[in-house]
Amino acid sequence: MRSGISDEHPPPYGQEEIRRHNLGALLRYVHVHGPTSRADLTTQLSLNRSTIGALAADLVATGLVTETVSSPIRRAGRPSLMVSPCSERIYAHALSIETSRIRAARVGLGGHLLDLREAHRPDWMPVLDAVRQLAGFVRDMAGSVDADTILVGGAVAVDDALRDTAGRPRTEDADEALAAAFAAEFPTGPRFVINDMAHVVGVAEHVRGIAVQVDDLIYLHGDVRVSAGIITAGRLVSGHRGLGGQVGHMVVNPHGRPCHCGSRGCWETEIGERALLLNAGRDPDDRAAVAEVLRAADQGEEQAYAAVQQIAEWLGFGVANLVNLINPDLVVFGGSLREIYAAGAKTARSRLDSMALPASIEHVQLELSSLGPDAVLLGAAELAFGPLFADPLRTGPVPYEAAP
Amino acid sequence: MRSGISDEHPPPYGQEEIRRHNLGALLRYVHVHGPTSRADLTTQLSLNRSTIGALAADLVATGLVTETVSSPIRRAGRPSLMVSPCSERIYAHALSIETSRIRAARVGLGGHLLDLREAHRPDWMPVLDAVRQLAGFVRDMAGSVDADTILVGGAVAVDDALRDTAGRPRTEDADEALAAAFAAEFPTGPRFVINDMAHVVGVAEHVRGIAVQVDDLIYLHGDVRVSAGIITAGRLVSGHRGLGGQVGHMVVNPHGRPCHCGSRGCWETEIGERALLLNAGRDPDDRAAVAEVLRAADQGEEQAYAAVQQIAEWLGFGVANLVNLINPDLVVFGGSLREIYAAGAKTARSRLDSMALPASIEHVQLELSSLGPDAVLLGAAELAFGPLFADPLRTGPVPYEAAP
Repeated sequence: MRSGISDEHPPPYGQEEIRRHNLGALLRYVHVHGPTSRADLTTQLSLNRSTIGALAADLVATGLVTETVSSPIRRAGRPSLMVSPCSERIYAHALSIETSRIRAARVGLGGHLLDLREAHRPDWMPVLDAVRQLAGFVRDMAGSVDADTILVGGAVAVDDALRDTAGRPRTEDADEALAAAFAAEFPTGPRFVINDMAHVVGVAEHVRGIAVQVDDLIYLHGDVRVSAGIITAGRLVSGHRGLGGQVGHMVVNPHGRPCHCGSRGCWETEIGERALLLNAGRDPDDRAAVAEVLRAADQGEEQAYAAVQQIAEWLGFGVANLVNLINPDLVVFGGSLREIYAAGAKTARSRLDSMALPASIEHVQLELSSLGPDAVLLGAAELAFGPLFADPLRTGPVPYEAAP
Repeated sequence: MRSGISDEHPPPYGQEEIRRHNLGALLRYVHVHGPTSRADLTTQLSLNRSTIGALAADLVATGLVTETVSSPIRRAGRPSLMVSPCSERIYAHALSIETSRIRAARVGLGGHLLDLREAHRPDWMPVLDAVRQLAGFVRDMAGSVDADTILVGGAVAVDDALRDTAGRPRTEDADEALAAAFAAEFPTGPRFVINDMAHVVGVAEHVRGIAVQVDDLIYLHGDVRVSAGIITAGRLVSGHRGLGGQVGHMVVNPHGRPCHCGSRGCWETEIGERALLLNAGRDPDDRAAVAEVLRAADQGEEQAYAAVQQIAEWLGFGVANLVNLINPDLVVFGGSLREIYAAGAKTARSRLDSMALPASIEHVQLELSSLGPDAVLLGAAELAFGPLFADPLRTGPVPYEAAP
């Protein structure tokens, strides 16, 4: 194995930064792994017992974690205190604007879904109009919480397909407009972080799903559009302006169909839902028919079967390109690509194996996303909790940004 | 702009790790930026004066830097001590195995080329046979150094084209064989780190070349093969096994020429040197004719001109895909792609602009590599210096791994 190169050298640390860093590491550990004994934290975080004890005490004092005596253990010696995240007390707002619905959740520290509101999103509803309805959900949920709960932040995942009303890929400007609309609804906070659904779900699968402990992975998200959350060395490839992962607009077929983006033969035109519906002789605008085509293919309808196999060929084709470029350990299929891949896995894998470099496919696994529809909310919560882990004590003993 | 997501949380730090980290940060700063005053280091590294003073004193004591009184300055107050890397004393061995030559250099801390040996590499020479000759160069150079110099490590950059004797892309195993061959030559060290030429040059351009201060970039290297060093958020995308960046085997033309990798229509078959030579009606195996074709195109020879334009079209095509995937700030062309891009820049840019997502190309710059033929040696030196910056005091006052 070649050694990686990183010419990045993070900025130096003073005493206060180190304490902050270590508090964040401990807090994030119990957020991801759940209640953990001090003894295990000592091992996992490579810090000595007294340091762990001091850090845990600080976090207890702030109300971010609790410490309890663990149940009697069989080992000799004193029982180790268990450190648990205060999941009911510390929470974030995690929102999603999806092709056909909008959702708002309160997610507690530790990744627990505490509350959830959902509404149908009519096709014609502009993204900015969804903000008012989501803001209503947020206020409604915030109104029902106990007085001593602390809101630490908010984030919104937006489906790639909703980038702007003309159907063009989302721009930086569109994200800014969305952030501004939330800021107008919540002038005193929280500030809602905006990101792409594929990015957000990729992070969720990495933190809590099928890609736990996998540091190089590609999460492929398909519905009307196709995009990806690419994670290398444990970090999301955001790109210069956060627009990385637009794999749907990788051109794979120069003589293919025109794409809504203005190009031709984009991967999305070969593996998106419209392609499946067109190949199967269905109405390409009838999203509900996707499941029907997959069922028909499974039951042996010839045209539906051929349509699925053709999508699977192009799926393997594009994955081969990505595997050559990124050399991941794991490729995860989500959204409607989850069912499409499941139906054509053999064909897709075979095409991948015949096209990609042997050394790059030797270790690569292909898997279905594992978190289900909550993935996007859990991923958005990770974004929203980010600032808390960067500086846990900043939350203070009272809400620092209360929802109105 | 969307905020990035990183779910990576580096491991916590104890006192000793912090000191090591800060020593490394200071040392790397003067390595990259050259002699710097204590006052400027205080600002640049966000540490207080006494900490900088103590760190610098530690590095002086180890012989890694020197401190001198800077020349009289116009500002009021005491002159600040200048901290300079000991470029003559602290060095690494930087080697390259290229398509038609092998090189070995001693590179001093600060990125100074102190010594250089070079030999022609016959086409038929297996990569492993190059090791003996390079080892001879290394011993020869090491024999001429002063007694108090310190060798901190070694690295080898290998051209993608030389991956194995069958012409297939290099595997992890091939890298291990190469590392083992060096280990056999230098049983007491240094351990030679192996990496891909495109990765290494990408890092060099990022640290010292056209991509300084650009954190999201793609360095495209072309000669017989085409590969890339992809850097996102300041870090090289190595991939799971270090095989990332194989952009030459991204399929862009499903009906194109068969590729040596076993696939068809790989980007390399459209923009590699062979493609240029074939399109121009030259002998595809005559690498020397590449420069002649470019000259002829410049002088108006119709077939050569058309050949360059066709390559430029495909160059823009593939760059569009990469820009959509990675959302870089900057794409840098090197190797023979440097001259090919220069000759067809207008065509390539126009194709890129018509294909890539408008939001992703809005800010992207295309540039020629700036470091010239030494880039690969400077980049290899960065690899070799890596462990020094991770733990500067480990070098001790005497060589910890002397070359035999």
